[in-house]
Amino acid sequence: MKAQRVELFVCPMATPADTSGLQRLADAGKISPDTLVALVGKTEGTGAHDDWGRVWADVVLREWTGKFLGIPAFEVAKQVIFVLSGGCPGVITPHIAAISREWVEIPDVGLESDRDKRLVVGRAGSDPMPPEEVGRMGQIRKVAAATHLAMADAGLTDPKDVHLVMVKVPGLTTASIKDAESRGKTVVSHDLTFGPEGAGAYANDAAALGVAMALGEVPESALSDEVVRANWDLYSEVAMTSSGGEKRHGEVVVFGNSNTSRSPLRIGHAVTRDFIDAEGVRNALRSAGLRFSNGLPAESDLSRLVHVFAKSVIPGSDQIRGQRITLLDDADAYQIGKALGGMLVASVTGRTTNYVSGGERNSHQGPPGGNIVAAVVRADDAL
Amino acid sequence: MKAQRVELFVCPMATPADTSGLQRLADAGKISPDTLVALVGKTEGTGAHDDWGRVWADVVLREWTGKFLGIPAFEVAKQVIFVLSGGCPGVITPHIAAISREWVEIPDVGLESDRDKRLVVGRAGSDPMPPEEVGRMGQIRKVAAATHLAMADAGLTDPKDVHLVMVKVPGLTTASIKDAESRGKTVVSHDLTFGPEGAGAYANDAAALGVAMALGEVPESALSDEVVRANWDLYSEVAMTSSGGEKRHGEVVVFGNSNTSRSPLRIGHAVTRDFIDAEGVRNALRSAGLRFSNGLPAESDLSRLVHVFAKSVIPGSDQIRGQRITLLDDADAYQIGKALGGMLVASVTGRTTNYVSGGERNSHQGPPGGNIVAAVVRADDAL
Amino acid sequence: MKAQRVELFVCPMATPADTSGLQRLADAGKISPDTLVALVGKTEGTGAHDDWGRVWADVVLREWTGKFLGIPAFEVAKQVIFVLSGGCPGVITPHIAAISREWVEIPDVGLESDRDKRLVVGRAGSDPMPPEEVGRMGQIRKVAAATHLAMADAGLTDPKDVHLVMVKVPGLTTASIKDAESRGKTVVSHDLTFGPEGAGAYANDAAALGVAMALGEVPESALSDEVVRANWDLYSEVAMTSSGGEKRHGEVVVFGNSNTSRSPLRIGHAVTRDFIDAEGVRNALRSAGLRFSNGLPAESDLSRLVHVFAKSVIPGSDQIRGQRITLLDDADAYQIGKALGGMLVASVTGRTTNYVSGGERNSHQGPPGGNIVAAVVRADDAL
Amino acid sequence: MKAQRVELFVCPMATPADTSGLQRLADAGKISPDTLVALVGKTEGTGAHDDWGRVWADVVLREWTGKFLGIPAFEVAKQVIFVLSGGCPGVITPHIAAISREWVEIPDVGLESDRDKRLVVGRAGSDPMPPEEVGRMGQIRKVAAATHLAMADAGLTDPKDVHLVMVKVPGLTTASIKDAESRGKTVVSHDLTFGPEGAGAYANDAAALGVAMALGEVPESALSDEVVRANWDLYSEVAMTSSGGEKRHGEVVVFGNSNTSRSPLRIGHAVTRDFIDAEGVRNALRSAGLRFSNGLPAESDLSRLVHVFAKSVIPGSDQIRGQRITLLDDADAYQIGKALGGMLVASVTGRTTNYVSGGERNSHQGPPGGNIVAAVVRADDAL
Repeated sequence: MKAQRVELFVCPMATPADTSGLQRLADAGKISPDTLVALVGKTEGTGAHDDWGRVWADVVLREWTGKFLGIPAFEVAKQVIFVLSGGCPGVITPHIAAISREWVEIPDVGLESDRDKRLVVGRAGSDPMPPEEVGRMGQIRKVAAATHLAMADAGLTDPKDVHLVMVKVPGLTTASIKDAESRGKTVVSHDLTFGPEGAGAYANDAAALGVAMALGEVPESALSDEVVRANWDLYSEVAMTSSGGEKRHGEVVVFGNSNTSRSPLRIGHAVTRDFIDAEGVRNALRSAGLRFSNGLPAESDLSRLVHVFAKSVIPGSDQIRGQRITLLDDADAYQIGKALGGMLVASVTGRTTNYVSGGERNSHQGPPGGNIVAAVVRADDAL
Repeated sequence: MKAQRVELFVCPMATPADTSGLQRLADAGKISPDTLVALVGKTEGTGAHDDWGRVWADVVLREWTGKFLGIPAFEVAKQVIFVLSGGCPGVITPHIAAISREWVEIPDVGLESDRDKRLVVGRAGSDPMPPEEVGRMGQIRKVAAATHLAMADAGLTDPKDVHLVMVKVPGLTTASIKDAESRGKTVVSHDLTFGPEGAGAYANDAAALGVAMALGEVPESALSDEVVRANWDLYSEVAMTSSGGEKRHGEVVVFGNSNTSRSPLRIGHAVTRDFIDAEGVRNALRSAGLRFSNGLPAESDLSRLVHVFAKSVIPGSDQIRGQRITLLDDADAYQIGKALGGMLVASVTGRTTNYVSGGERNSHQGPPGGNIVAAVVRADDAL
Repeated sequence: MKAQRVELFVCPMATPADTSGLQRLADAGKISPDTLVALVGKTEGTGAHDDWGRVWADVVLREWTGKFLGIPAFEVAKQVIFVLSGGCPGVITPHIAAISREWVEIPDVGLESDRDKRLVVGRAGSDPMPPEEVGRMGQIRKVAAATHLAMADAGLTDPKDVHLVMVKVPGLTTASIKDAESRGKTVVSHDLTFGPEGAGAYANDAAALGVAMALGEVPESALSDEVVRANWDLYSEVAMTSSGGEKRHGEVVVFGNSNTSRSPLRIGHAVTRDFIDAEGVRNALRSAGLRFSNGLPAESDLSRLVHVFAKSVIPGSDQIRGQRITLLDDADAYQIGKALGGMLVASVTGRTTNYVSGGERNSHQGPPGGNIVAAVVRADDAL
Repeated sequence: MKAQRVELFVCPMATPADTSGLQRLADAGKISPDTLVALVGKTEGTGAHDDWGRVWADVVLREWTGKFLGIPAFEVAKQVIFVLSGGCPGVITPHIAAISREWVEIPDVGLESDRDKRLVVGRAGSDPMPPEEVGRMGQIRKVAAATHLAMADAGLTDPKDVHLVMVKVPGLTTASIKDAESRGKTVVSHDLTFGPEGAGAYANDAAALGVAMALGEVPESALSDEVVRANWDLYSEVAMTSSGGEKRHGEVVVFGNSNTSRSPLRIGHAVTRDFIDAEGVRNALRSAGLRFSNGLPAESDLSRLVHVFAKSVIPGSDQIRGQRITLLDDADAYQIGKALGGMLVASVTGRTTNYVSGGERNSHQGPPGGNIVAAVVRADDAL
């Protein structure tokens, strides 16, 4: 049978247009046109709507990838999923992580059950999501369906084996709102921002609930248009989602562990219980199999830590462990919120090349006040 | 003989004008007009030059203290030292810490040597510092002299027993520069900001070197006008300094441990080796005597942690542990730098009521890239 | 019969707590406890939710006014209306304008019709506005009713004589939303900000439409819950509104001209047609009776200009006169938008002590893309 | 004899990478590889050190120009001067202005003296400027010499005919400072920013004084290292300067009017006397020959206005016409200062496609508190 062999390489970027790390991977044969499945990174820039650092990086990375694959840049999206999160305030090193998936022939699967579970990746696109579905049950259900497809593509059946689901869905635009309303439909919001009532926030959160539904974290019966961005007790512990007006379909990438995998890597995850919960970050490293020494990640084992993916959603409350904070009122709460997540992770991993996205307030990505952390570790026998 | 009994109480503030916590301390008899020696706090607001939150807090706290002491507000400074650090971005709870010092009669001192060392506090004013001395050797020497006086007031002779020295010195103003130049003198800078060439930064750093000289951290022979804000290998591990144009003298408060003290508290300190070094924060807690369990502060012992004082100076380099960060270029680096220090401390202490000042770039307060952390712990027998 | 004699004095403030200008007015007998009816000002500070400059100014001004009136500070609101707009970015001088209204005995009114119209002021409170009415028809109708009352108090019957209506109404709070929902009511938004879908924006805009309804600028038949913040063709040319969660009633102050007035002042207004329309500002000065010379306010006549009140709402479009601008995406659009209004006015009036509030995006205060400007001029015979 | 025919075309840009306007000019034959001499524009983005919008625009524009000229992108600088000023806050439309210079054969020059003066352009490079000269007399003298060369290239001899001099000079970098100090030289500042003591500010201001020296606006005898950024009474009324660490030589472009020119354009300039002086902007339009009607640019003549170049340096004082402003303390003074200049110009020109650079505090570019404005107008007979 065919089994996956997944690799993940983290390349720091010196500028938004720095593809030298990817080129070195290509030159060294570590990634190939056949195996490159995703590029996930943090780009320097404002992290806002008009983040030209991110836009430039996107253009340059697509051009590079197009050349690498031998196809036009505009067709790259069909083969390689891009997740670029803008804004590296504080101690987040701009970087791009290349994820490659090779299929290797392995013997009969019956022998696999006592093997260590290792990293697998699966991808799927969703059905088209018209604007009237954005931020609502239509989007939730279609993300759930695509999550099931991506799990199948990954060869995963048990939701417990899923540790990270990255999703991109359509948001709303002036044009798509007009389209919906011209057909007599309503939309979830006319606010095109990622603010608390913004269409971007609704889209992201519907996507998160779609993952939660697919994985059984939230029963479908508990879901409705009304709970989105309203009932914060409903959430996923593994969904990291984003949205963009230019998209028509959703895209889902599932990361999990399987005992059929031949990857040298393993993934794990945990959630922080609040905004200052370093133990939540440590638990993600533990979950992925990193050894601890005296309560902390063993220095000697940190070289096995390949990457961390974390959200840093700002809590909706002005209280942390009973004390007031002013984060919600900070003029630059969005930047500071993201930066603080970067510090929380870096202070545990001892490195700054972590993927940390966030800054928005409240989300169904992770529990109220807490955040999702996933970690990828290289197996001992893979060193 | 007379011995000190020092207490420190942390009062969260709901607004910049919230004196209710101090009033409760007064009503409960925990502070008295005779014993209140200092108010040290973090006030919410912009943290910038025109931080009206800090200014308002200063006015209101002086008024409250004047009433408490039965003297006019403008005379409060003679009896109680105020250190208000503006700006609580992220996870820093606005608060005011009241420090009281009572003198108690104890038996002959010969018996003291085998007692646990406990917290003592000493204060001293410096000789006047004319504008031409600001940021230069004149200021350094006068801070050093005042530090010796404050140590004497604290009953401390060994620099190793000193764990925190808070200093306020004169900076420059348009008027004081005019004064100096009219007398044919030069000044260290015409830039009145706290930027890299700003007079405020020079004043703060000369004050830090003055402490370093007094404590023997830097030999006087290594000091000159030229090394200020130039030779970063010269620094204090215990000096937290600030400056203001309105001042004419320096003020020094020394915190240390002495075996003649009858305080229920103990202080310790450490430095972080870089901006993400949580172990440095943990070392400060260890130094103060907090028990650790499995590499981390024991949950059961955290109730003994009374307070943490930390700097969060931004590193002068764009590298942390070999990876590039963009902090130096962040539009709001000052806010983010301060916020990140707050997170580093809060993620270790598990609370947000920490005193964290900083945001400026480079300093002789702490080693290059690292920062000073001091912690105050209640002794077991004091619970 | 009784006739009004209204005066308006502009006092620059050196800090948010500077009451020296008001004190000088009081010492000179220009304002008295009987005549002071309103304080309208711009306070320095962030201009945001947690603008401590504005809060401090509010506290200090209420204390001063309470002493002036011989009543407790918390009762000042019953006698003197406060409108403090926070944030003076750019070229807006922090200031407070004191408005006094004296009643003088004049002969029979029949002789008045050929007199010049002069400034009158009228005030009224509205019926209570429960949270479910905020941003909806309930609030619109109650503001309209209060506007009629305030016009009557001013002695005005013709809407054409009304040139400025300042309104403060209740917004929403977490508590008031809970209250409404506990009674089975819905609220207009759960977003407590002044963002595009924020409750604050809805409250301000319902208040503006209430004024428009009262003055016949918009027929009641065109109004409904659905048009608020949706149909921008409905607007008032004279309403400047604000909202606060702490309020339960609306407050309305009407400024207009009447030929029964014995004031030395006259008010006028105009609207700008877009964000760079200096001619709109000039038209307001013309409307108030300032002489122009060669297309511009005559230098020699500018001393008669007493004050300008202007809004600076950011346009909802990214186009000005056919060219794209990036204001909507500017990281600090709120500050920049307010600052730009300050420049537009100052570049015409040749002074910086103008009242300019704004920064929010889109409003029923003024036409789409344009803004309201009102000006008060001293009559020739009053110099 | 040969005479210049200079054209200037303003192309709004929809994104930092939008070269469609230039392409249309090329397709229409309005610019050609032989005639394109400069691209001067405003790019959207943060306007700060790490403005990726500006960097991306620079890369894309050089690539486009390289293709247009048939040379590699890295050689474009030898033929076409690029002046890209980052940051379009407020009402500044991102745009690129293409300047072309054609040489046409004209009859004997003796007949020229009674012709209207028309636009000419001249360019020159300076001698290399080692780091120890940056911000000092060495840089001033070399810019002055290059300005003379550029005037000669433009065919200008009378400084009165010079209306705009754009200069780019080397600044300092960590590397160039090391180089200077390794050779026993000092540098003007170790602060690499554009702050009040920053090397960037010193370089810009030395360049401005170089222009002032060349044009006789400041006598050489009044110049010394000490006056740079110290004696603000010394300034140029036509110099707009910038600096970059990557440069080794200075570049100078002179714009003036000559009666030998066959251009359809004319340039003029004026200075504002303070930050709100709209009349200064109007004077620049008058100087360029725009017709005024009733004190304002005639609406019917505004179509002849081709472009405006303006500085918006923040005043060093907190007073405008006797009233205090808080601009110097605004958290985002740099952005707001630039935005305000954009408004001042747009409110006069009635359009937003103006070149406005600035935001820095104090400069020898223009008089204290005021700013330089240059305008290019199409001649009547050229319409």
